[in-house]
Amino acid sequence: MNKLQQAGERIIGAKRILILSHIRPDGDAIGSTLGLGLALQTEGKNVQMVLADGVPKEFHFLTASEQITQQPEGDFDVIVALDCSDMDRLGDVLENLPSPTVNIDHHISNVKFAEINLIDDQAAATAEMLAAYLPQWGLTVDKPVAEALLTGLITDTIGFRTPNVSPKTMRTAANLIEAGANISDLYQKAIIDRSYASVRYWMQGLQSLKMKDGLVWVSLTLEDRQKADYPGNGDADLINLLASIEEADIAVTFIEQEGEATKVSWRAKPGLDVSKVAAQFGGGGHKLAAGATIQGSLADVRERVLEKTDALLKTQE
Amino acid sequence: MNKLQQAGERIIGAKRILILSHIRPDGDAIGSTLGLGLALQTEGKNVQMVLADGVPKEFHFLTASEQITQQPEGDFDVIVALDCSDMDRLGDVLENLPSPTVNIDHHISNVKFAEINLIDDQAAATAEMLAAYLPQWGLTVDKPVAEALLTGLITDTIGFRTPNVSPKTMRTAANLIEAGANISDLYQKAIIDRSYASVRYWMQGLQSLKMKDGLVWVSLTLEDRQKADYPGNGDADLINLLASIEEADIAVTFIEQEGEATKVSWRAKPGLDVSKVAAQFGGGGHKLAAGATIQGSLADVRERVLEKTDALLKTQE
Repeated sequence: MNKLQQAGERIIGAKRILILSHIRPDGDAIGSTLGLGLALQTEGKNVQMVLADGVPKEFHFLTASEQITQQPEGDFDVIVALDCSDMDRLGDVLENLPSPTVNIDHHISNVKFAEINLIDDQAAATAEMLAAYLPQWGLTVDKPVAEALLTGLITDTIGFRTPNVSPKTMRTAANLIEAGANISDLYQKAIIDRSYASVRYWMQGLQSLKMKDGLVWVSLTLEDRQKADYPGNGDADLINLLASIEEADIAVTFIEQEGEATKVSWRAKPGLDVSKVAAQFGGGGHKLAAGATIQGSLADVRERVLEKTDALLKTQE
Repeated sequence: MNKLQQAGERIIGAKRILILSHIRPDGDAIGSTLGLGLALQTEGKNVQMVLADGVPKEFHFLTASEQITQQPEGDFDVIVALDCSDMDRLGDVLENLPSPTVNIDHHISNVKFAEINLIDDQAAATAEMLAAYLPQWGLTVDKPVAEALLTGLITDTIGFRTPNVSPKTMRTAANLIEAGANISDLYQKAIIDRSYASVRYWMQGLQSLKMKDGLVWVSLTLEDRQKADYPGNGDADLINLLASIEEADIAVTFIEQEGEATKVSWRAKPGLDVSKVAAQFGGGGHKLAAGATIQGSLADVRERVLEKTDALLKTQE
């Protein structure tokens, strides 16, 4: 019996199942949790779905998202961790509980913390893995399950455009559409819809747009946020607009925070590695997308970060 | 013998083949033209690919795009029109030539102007149809052909997000990736990359952002264009950002032109029909996306258009 069958037997053999995913949950964390959870509920299982940080408002459109809580209650026969590379990323949800039984993830950095670890770093999303596993475990991919999993696929691939999108990714999406998911509608809700305030915030931020020697950047002040009436403390994805500028190799946003701190986001063109410069400032991320929160005024942090980022670009080019 | 086989026999039986598509060519017009053209060249055919308006700079990355000319030369055994709903949309390219032999298109409005008309209004792109037809005609989908066709699919579906994306669309994309097309790279080049000047132009335009009673709009003046050093006379796709604002039902951009004229673009949420208001001003388009060029100053046109658009919204809601 292979690991996939073992994991299936453990899950299907259980009565009380806890499903977990990572803090600051994205569409794949939420979609995978709901996809597996709802499929198991259809089989009559007692399922708890828990995300330490809860479900952000933009994913409330998913069926049964209101079932997701922030703390588990009671005991479980099986604990499944999804889309989570290590146990720290689960948040404080396992205080009086054992380690996860099954770990299903597509991150190459997964440290295999569970009893049975199903890791496929070729998959574009954990939802892509589950879309294949569920039928093999005898579980039904009905409309709500398909919607949850397709949302995971759409968000983790930013609309099927990341380098890890494979023929399997596209065929998985085809199957999920056939199972009842409306791709156009989910795509709109999950990654297109934005608030009027966020566009006003972009307008404020873009007034500081600068480009020099392959770097492009904007600064977003607390005053910009207030003028735009924007409720978040990030850049409202303005970094993705900057990253689309063809003349620049690296895009950076500087977001002023309360208490003399500045959030910084980097995006790089393939071939570069901005996680290195983020690490110099105590941050982290991937080669092409990284971030850090740095103590200091916006102007001070901007000067230091641009100097180091410029130096990185000159080394890596 | 069905129409598809008939079309294949006529094309494969020919020596000199002319391939045409529509004026103001988009990614599907160009990708379909190159996809069919290159596949026939591989079979040793003498192929001319003609687009009345040539290939815009952003599609020069496609293999053999430089082969596409703006006028046919000589005689042909077969003329194929692609992605073109009527003969006017071909431009002035058939002056001393007969009507097209084969017409391959996915527009429901196609008037079937050729001898053999292959029309599939369920297809998300003409490239999707060709990806199925080429192998059935014994033609090879090699890497450059796959890249051209996948570019058609990506652009016509705005990255697999339009309502006509079907399981077949996604499986076609899977097959084209397997045939050698890099989806991430093509997606970036075809619909993500934008110029620094276009983002500066957005910054200028967004300063006029307004929202009222379900309408959101911006005005782009000739001065904005000049300040941003933006070379085009459109809105640099700013309309798509406005259309993503969840609080608005209709988005409009007003773009001041030389000589007291104003270009107007509308986008609507599903359920509405902005082509009706565009028609009132001599323009046209689809239910969810329409445009017009209207005589009058920006301020004057804006007032008239907002009034009619507001009236339309009140009727359709």
